[in-house]
Amino acid sequence: MTAPLYQQLAARYRQAITAGTLAPGDRMPSVRTLMGLHEVSLSTALQACRELEAAGLLEARPRSGYFVCAPARPALRPLAEPDLTLPDADQLAGQFEGIHARISSIMASWQRHEIRMDFGGAFCAPALYPNDALRTAAARALRRYPDVYGHVVQADGHAPFRVAVARHAMRARIRVAPEDIAITYGCTEALHIALRAVTAPGDAVAVESPTYYGLLQTLESLGLRAVEIPCSSQTGISLEALELAARTHDDIKAVVVVPNLQNPLGCIMPDANKARLVAWCDDRALPLIEDDCFSATADDEVPLAAAKAWDTTGNVIYCASLNKVLAPGLRLGWMAAGKWQARVEMLKINMSRPNELLPQIIAADFMHDGAFERHLRRLRVQLRAQREWVAGRIARTFPEGTRLTLPRGGMHLWIELPESESETSQTPVSARVADQALQQGIRVLPGAMFSNSTRYDRYLRVNCGAPRSDDIERALDTLAGIVRQHAR
Amino acid sequence: MTAPLYQQLAARYRQAITAGTLAPGDRMPSVRTLMGLHEVSLSTALQACRELEAAGLLEARPRSGYFVCAPARPALRPLAEPDLTLPDADQLAGQFEGIHARISSIMASWQRHEIRMDFGGAFCAPALYPNDALRTAAARALRRYPDVYGHVVQADGHAPFRVAVARHAMRARIRVAPEDIAITYGCTEALHIALRAVTAPGDAVAVESPTYYGLLQTLESLGLRAVEIPCSSQTGISLEALELAARTHDDIKAVVVVPNLQNPLGCIMPDANKARLVAWCDDRALPLIEDDCFSATADDEVPLAAAKAWDTTGNVIYCASLNKVLAPGLRLGWMAAGKWQARVEMLKINMSRPNELLPQIIAADFMHDGAFERHLRRLRVQLRAQREWVAGRIARTFPEGTRLTLPRGGMHLWIELPESESETSQTPVSARVADQALQQGIRVLPGAMFSNSTRYDRYLRVNCGAPRSDDIERALDTLAGIVRQHAR
Repeated sequence: MTAPLYQQLAARYRQAITAGTLAPGDRMPSVRTLMGLHEVSLSTALQACRELEAAGLLEARPRSGYFVCAPARPALRPLAEPDLTLPDADQLAGQFEGIHARISSIMASWQRHEIRMDFGGAFCAPALYPNDALRTAAARALRRYPDVYGHVVQADGHAPFRVAVARHAMRARIRVAPEDIAITYGCTEALHIALRAVTAPGDAVAVESPTYYGLLQTLESLGLRAVEIPCSSQTGISLEALELAARTHDDIKAVVVVPNLQNPLGCIMPDANKARLVAWCDDRALPLIEDDCFSATADDEVPLAAAKAWDTTGNVIYCASLNKVLAPGLRLGWMAAGKWQARVEMLKINMSRPNELLPQIIAADFMHDGAFERHLRRLRVQLRAQREWVAGRIARTFPEGTRLTLPRGGMHLWIELPESESETSQTPVSARVADQALQQGIRVLPGAMFSNSTRYDRYLRVNCGAPRSDDIERALDTLAGIVRQHAR
Repeated sequence: MTAPLYQQLAARYRQAITAGTLAPGDRMPSVRTLMGLHEVSLSTALQACRELEAAGLLEARPRSGYFVCAPARPALRPLAEPDLTLPDADQLAGQFEGIHARISSIMASWQRHEIRMDFGGAFCAPALYPNDALRTAAARALRRYPDVYGHVVQADGHAPFRVAVARHAMRARIRVAPEDIAITYGCTEALHIALRAVTAPGDAVAVESPTYYGLLQTLESLGLRAVEIPCSSQTGISLEALELAARTHDDIKAVVVVPNLQNPLGCIMPDANKARLVAWCDDRALPLIEDDCFSATADDEVPLAAAKAWDTTGNVIYCASLNKVLAPGLRLGWMAAGKWQARVEMLKINMSRPNELLPQIIAADFMHDGAFERHLRRLRVQLRAQREWVAGRIARTFPEGTRLTLPRGGMHLWIELPESESETSQTPVSARVADQALQQGIRVLPGAMFSNSTRYDRYLRVNCGAPRSDDIERALDTLAGIVRQHAR
């Protein structure tokens, strides 16, 4: 299964625009020219142009055709691409016992400070979620199910919610029956269960580098070792490096990836890579765990496909949630675990019993009609504006040498700080910046949280989930000041 | 720390009544006589009599004093006491890989049947929970916190709920600060976290025998081995057998007990045993995990003390929930983990993130004033009547040789079936009974679920959480018919 023709065509021109082959203001080849050049139909050529337009790369001028837009991207160099040499996973493994001492101690330190401006989370500001509609749905649910709290929740939960989830999964081109979906407490629990379903203590697991700190904690707490695979800020996990790692680490028992809007990089794997990864894992009977929390926030009007879309054997365990895109407070996640479904369901029951019903009823209600799609459309536009604004502010205020690749979705930026010339401290610069910011009530995440290596000690993850405001601007400027002190 | 004097006195007379030393209709020694006999104050003697009255053992006759009541207990022999020989924990360990194959397959079989009468759960009927009040509290909460679903839940949750929990824990004589309480998804997740906090794969854990099947699943899924310690249906876990086991199993790394209304036995450990157990574990630096879900349903007006009440060093990890006594649908549990508190909180964050807020707000609201205590008082009386009615029906309809010890609280009975004379099948009798009942839409739990041994193959756990009804009576009679077929 490969991507539709029009997407392949769009990808080719996206690359040309990103690489500068087609510059801002250039005229895009006409639809007729595209048809001849690439031997495609009129509708394919048109669809490709429309996708590029929706992605903000082209603009249509009446009666003149499509032109390459001036980039909304800030004047920052994109992130450096990683070295595709072997991962150095085991290098530091011995230092971390239990629940990942480094990450756990950073997380614990947050509790000791009053946080006035939080750039640390991976959520939107509360105002971006449809609170009124959810509250109305809650009130309706309480009228309809007056004894909801008196009933033991059964394993199959609220059936209409699983129907809504199955329908929503179709956006990502996943076909799954409602009864083959397990409801979890967010994607966090789903990932946990997925790992427990297919690994045993002592196993190694291939993960992206950098990767979500919660995953590193989970791996260590389950007695698993992370093998970090380099990840491009453009195309995601390096399949070449993964192959190389698998050849040298025969104890790798699972692969965990975020193909769409990776955390923290924000990269999106090309569909061809997704297909290749799924087939490669399947060939080796290596379970592929897919974490897909952010994809509904992607700029593109055409929804991103999940890697699971290419799964024909049930080898992909798909984990997703509504926390990022609908409501952090509902704590709803789910998984479609293919051939491990029964095992996954039993682990869920054993770990925390079925999820509370009311959130499922509320979400099913909201997802039932077009309200959810309308909300997502608004959210995408809003998030894009916020990302661009924060990136622009960073470009203006952070010291020279700061690098950033603007992601095509999501709610955070991954920032590389310039090399410090007077590097004397043992503590990595990002940790010093994050600490100093925390003293001033500002939370950002130091890059050191996203790897077992020291590779990201000069990186920060900064949230941009909140609408533009003077408070945020001031906090970003304070942050810039702290970064400048250390960049000198 | 020992039990108050009046409780010691009450316990002595309770024993005399249970043993038949004082028979139904006998006059209880007068308060004045008690004062002289035991050298206690008037108020102590009076309190002891009132406790026995509240427990249904004495009745006050105006101007004549207290008399021993006719027993409401059914005409069944109490359960046999266990052999205090060494536990045979490892006997079958090899058969169970992963999530405990036997228990998991029984649980999975439930999904394949339409259950019309459920004697399998450990909950009350929905009507016994304060649904109207909870719904009103929910509506109030939504008005007060209109954006509750749009906010990310912080690690400290809803502060007033932890205050309410700390206050509720005082019932069980536990002193814990609200900030030293972790909120979990029921006691299930709490136990899971407790075990992960203090053990590593490969360790052994001492548990009661019989014990809750969910615990056996959890142990196996975490790579832990259960060492089953015999448990009396009167006084709970045998401390002598535990000492013996510890001497022969030096890999025991934790002890898990349900000191109050053990599941499935329903026994209550005497306070002296609780104190001894806590001290014994502390001496050996063996973490003691206490599961205390049912104690608020005990008949006694004086609340049962938790083992944690004797904990002076933080060695007891106390796990409890509101699922059984307030609302199964709120999915609220908590833990007070003593010296492991920080570790436990980090594991909780990592496994499933902080619990949803709305249930915490609702519960805090309901627990704030006297409504919770009034509800518990009603529930205790109601449950006692239901237990006695079901036990009475079983006494009349089950075959001769059936045994049962009526517990002093909770919502289930643990029934020993008579020995079958023509034992030909490989399948244990309780499994055959449970299977056949399931075919008729009736769910009961076979004893085989409560141990890794074959020791309870002739036992059933039967729920009595629902008020008397013709439907229940018919289902019990159907069950009795099935049991009679196999008893022949």
